[in-house]
Amino acid sequence: MGYQVMKSLTTGKKPEKVIPVNPSKKCIMGLETYPSLINVDGDVDLAVIVLPAHLVSSSIKECIRKKVKGIILITAGFAEIEDQSGYILQREVSELANRADIPIIGPNCFGIFNVKTGMNATFNPDFPDTVKEGKVALISQSGGVAGAIAFESRTRNIGFSKIISLGNRCNTDFAEMIEYLMDDSDTEVIAMYMEGIDEPRLLLEALSEFRGKKPVIIYKVGKSKVSDMASQSHTGSLAGRFDIYMGAFRQAGVIVVDSITDLLDVAQALTCSPLPKDSNVAVLSGQAGLAMIACDVCETFGMQVNPFSPETQTKLNRFLPPVTIRTNPVDLGPAWNNMSVVRDAIKVLLNDKVMSSLLLLFVMSGANEDNFSGLSEVFESVTERKPVLSSILSLPGGKWETEIKALEQSGSLVNYPTPERAARALAGLWEYQRIRNLSEQ
Amino acid sequence: MGYQVMKSLTTGKKPEKVIPVNPSKKCIMGLETYPSLINVDGDVDLAVIVLPAHLVSSSIKECIRKKVKGIILITAGFAEIEDQSGYILQREVSELANRADIPIIGPNCFGIFNVKTGMNATFNPDFPDTVKEGKVALISQSGGVAGAIAFESRTRNIGFSKIISLGNRCNTDFAEMIEYLMDDSDTEVIAMYMEGIDEPRLLLEALSEFRGKKPVIIYKVGKSKVSDMASQSHTGSLAGRFDIYMGAFRQAGVIVVDSITDLLDVAQALTCSPLPKDSNVAVLSGQAGLAMIACDVCETFGMQVNPFSPETQTKLNRFLPPVTIRTNPVDLGPAWNNMSVVRDAIKVLLNDKVMSSLLLLFVMSGANEDNFSGLSEVFESVTERKPVLSSILSLPGGKWETEIKALEQSGSLVNYPTPERAARALAGLWEYQRIRNLSEQ
Repeated sequence: MGYQVMKSLTTGKKPEKVIPVNPSKKCIMGLETYPSLINVDGDVDLAVIVLPAHLVSSSIKECIRKKVKGIILITAGFAEIEDQSGYILQREVSELANRADIPIIGPNCFGIFNVKTGMNATFNPDFPDTVKEGKVALISQSGGVAGAIAFESRTRNIGFSKIISLGNRCNTDFAEMIEYLMDDSDTEVIAMYMEGIDEPRLLLEALSEFRGKKPVIIYKVGKSKVSDMASQSHTGSLAGRFDIYMGAFRQAGVIVVDSITDLLDVAQALTCSPLPKDSNVAVLSGQAGLAMIACDVCETFGMQVNPFSPETQTKLNRFLPPVTIRTNPVDLGPAWNNMSVVRDAIKVLLNDKVMSSLLLLFVMSGANEDNFSGLSEVFESVTERKPVLSSILSLPGGKWETEIKALEQSGSLVNYPTPERAARALAGLWEYQRIRNLSEQ
Repeated sequence: MGYQVMKSLTTGKKPEKVIPVNPSKKCIMGLETYPSLINVDGDVDLAVIVLPAHLVSSSIKECIRKKVKGIILITAGFAEIEDQSGYILQREVSELANRADIPIIGPNCFGIFNVKTGMNATFNPDFPDTVKEGKVALISQSGGVAGAIAFESRTRNIGFSKIISLGNRCNTDFAEMIEYLMDDSDTEVIAMYMEGIDEPRLLLEALSEFRGKKPVIIYKVGKSKVSDMASQSHTGSLAGRFDIYMGAFRQAGVIVVDSITDLLDVAQALTCSPLPKDSNVAVLSGQAGLAMIACDVCETFGMQVNPFSPETQTKLNRFLPPVTIRTNPVDLGPAWNNMSVVRDAIKVLLNDKVMSSLLLLFVMSGANEDNFSGLSEVFESVTERKPVLSSILSLPGGKWETEIKALEQSGSLVNYPTPERAARALAGLWEYQRIRNLSEQ
């Protein structure tokens, strides 16, 4: 474990100045090693502790003497173990750190990775290769789930500012993270994976205090009896009554999701898209079935697929044949192969005053792939920015990819692999706008 | 459209004998063209009609005179259009075909693709490049959704026997498809995407008659008011009261899912895995958080993560340190880096008599990737086959991939990108076993 942490800290895009402390070795990975923290010359910003649990207390005492600013305590064997001694040890460590006013991340955690600076104080040296830099701060009670999320994010247009594993949270908990990240200029969206909560009141107060300042998305487990119990022996606290937490989170202005996929999908939309001013969504589809799927999800999450205004409907009728659904949702039908009609339809809906968001759902094939170009100009010609989320599907490496990627780069749309996921992400945007509306009242 | 259909039929792995019929051309794509079907020498098995709607009736009459065995009617402009004339035209075509006892797929559909024989009678010539051959028959009311599902399946270990788009179902509906596919030796799993149903009684009767013979998975839209209405103008029938259909489907022995993702995930498990004999699942994880996520999903879908028998627990305790969750779920904790312990734990759980399925949840990193080998021998040494679904996550192209792919090939496990999806798919297996139990009573 110590080797992996050293590797993480000393490799990556901008290695830190790392001073190994080890009483029995003179040199670790080519670096001069000190027998004790006290012997180190100069100030120490951060101590990363990867020692057996019984040695941790004396190590914390050295950190206090050396006046380190923060500690990452990776070591396990505290409140999460069966034996009561672990709980006592954790209390001892917390009391020491609290008296000296030193924040500790951990114990029983995998550490933190500051994606922007490249400081990887985790036992996962692969992180810099796995995750992109971006605007989402991920706070995970479980290091394993943080790893799973990082892998799932890898092939997508989503990046992180910080990845933080909290573990047992001896004196640094979700509430402190909320406070810190709300002021962190590298972070636009806060995404949390949560098991148990020791101080729900503090967390809810922090969430309420900053309600609407930045989006907070929470994925909490502990719905089932067995995962509630597992929470105790994983990071030392019971998950608690799931439904009560869900209600309290919603009241405190949290976007609640129920899978890793949704956590990432909603976070991606929130970092890449403007917010809709209300719940009215226009659905434009190359194939009606995709639109129907999206409508179901939209309505489940409180979005409205209302009829268009007479003006907009008249404009659409002008170039769409009467053989398909032309009301909201719009099925382009045979017109789908006519790129000029596709562009016109998109433009009409982007310029519509009532529809404050747009879902674009297209399945490309060899027959229409050639047509799919010139969308960038359509988006450029529209002055009012509104969220456009899409599920534009085609063979990987197809001609559409260049256009889609350019549109994603310019912030014109965010693309998802299924219509369900595009609609769920859009609903997440509206949920955050609603939270903002409420907090402004 | 006609060109795309011709291209589909004449390319692909085993082109059909195709005879173009067109009154105004002598040669299409290098093939001798007949002015009318009647002029064609010899028998015609299948007529694919891609003509303007008003020419369809006389074309059907020619098919009847020529005694073709079946018709695919791709043409749109029937019951789905606003104008009443479309409805009348569809009735006329149905009556003609019914009198002559000729089944018609369509109208307003994209056709059918027999993946095994390679006959691609759709207007999507890319299908043979997009989908793999396999055991899932996909029946989709919407051609667009069939395309979306095909793209989503593309990068996964899932293949199709047939892909059929039903469109307006003038005389061939879901019920006929159930009857046909239950006897189709190339099909093990029937997956359906459904919007509206004209003859719910016939469908429910067909489902009930074959209950438990092969798994039937249905993804139905029409939950929202707007998609219910859109159904009318998409494939000519109202979606109907969603909840009533869901209840009726479940009673008739259908596995009900609510996304493209779940449809494919459950279908994949059903073609690749044995069934669990009951709802008891053992959860073995390299990282506790993943196990907690999976437990929540398992319980939601009626699977039990019950405590192990004393014998199994004693065996596990022998090689697992007391610092993690060793009861069900099992968190390997620091033992995760010891491949011999991982193998022993898997073997104990595979040999356990009470646990009838196993979820394996591992996040790999550089630190443990090297260890991940030798699992094949573990699976080979176990006599009783039980479902093992996994979410084993790592960098694409990592060393683990060879081992996972080999295990998937041998039928030892089925791997998913998140623990939620692995758990949902496992629940689908148990759902089908429950359906079989009920139908045997």
